[in-house]
Amino acid sequence: MAVILQIDFTMPAEMLGENLTEAARGLAESINQEPGFMSKIWTENTATGEAGGIYHFADRASAQAYMEMHVKRVEAMGAKNIRGRIFDINETLTAINYGQTGKGQTGH
Amino acid sequence: MAVILQIDFTMPAEMLGENLTEAARGLAESINQEPGFMSKIWTENTATGEAGGIYHFADRASAQAYMEMHVKRVEAMGAKNIRGRIFDINETLTAINYGQTGKGQTGH
Repeated sequence: MAVILQIDFTMPAEMLGENLTEAARGLAESINQEPGFMSKIWTENTATGEAGGIYHFADRASAQAYMEMHVKRVEAMGAKNIRGRIFDINETLTAINYGQTGKGQTGH
Repeated sequence: MAVILQIDFTMPAEMLGENLTEAARGLAESINQEPGFMSKIWTENTATGEAGGIYHFADRASAQAYMEMHVKRVEAMGAKNIRGRIFDINETLTAINYGQTGKGQTGH
């Protein structure tokens, strides 16, 4: 059953936006190869210096393994106040609200 | 430009899962009518008693207005430790990772 991995952290605002787009293109491509990975929305706030990601993973074990690896990686990049949560998706309510449940999506 | 609204909170685990599905069906339908609303993924963790939502809104002002209203509403339902963040979407990186940027989605 697909899960949501929600990660956010603080990071100097000058590392976000277009600078992140350039710096993280190869990282983004590598994320497509992670076991169980389905999708990621890259989140950022250049006003507050916050960023993170909203991921779909195919299962909780894959999300957990990725989170543990990724937390160390963003820490090495200068992230602070890193916060990660793995959630199940309430599929019935999510379907009412046009959200991506992960059903029918293919893994990548 | 579409934004992500990320909300999570603690809530007694017995209010989540199937009980939430039954109790919140009308709430979910009403959320479809909110200004600027595009989609919501309903997130929950019955092991830790945490829940929340990942929303797409058409713009930051709509997300902000909804967040202020919704925080009071879930507080009245018994939620504690409520945390809300509004993020921009890095569209280039999100497109590489198959995430929903909000572009080409219709509002509901």
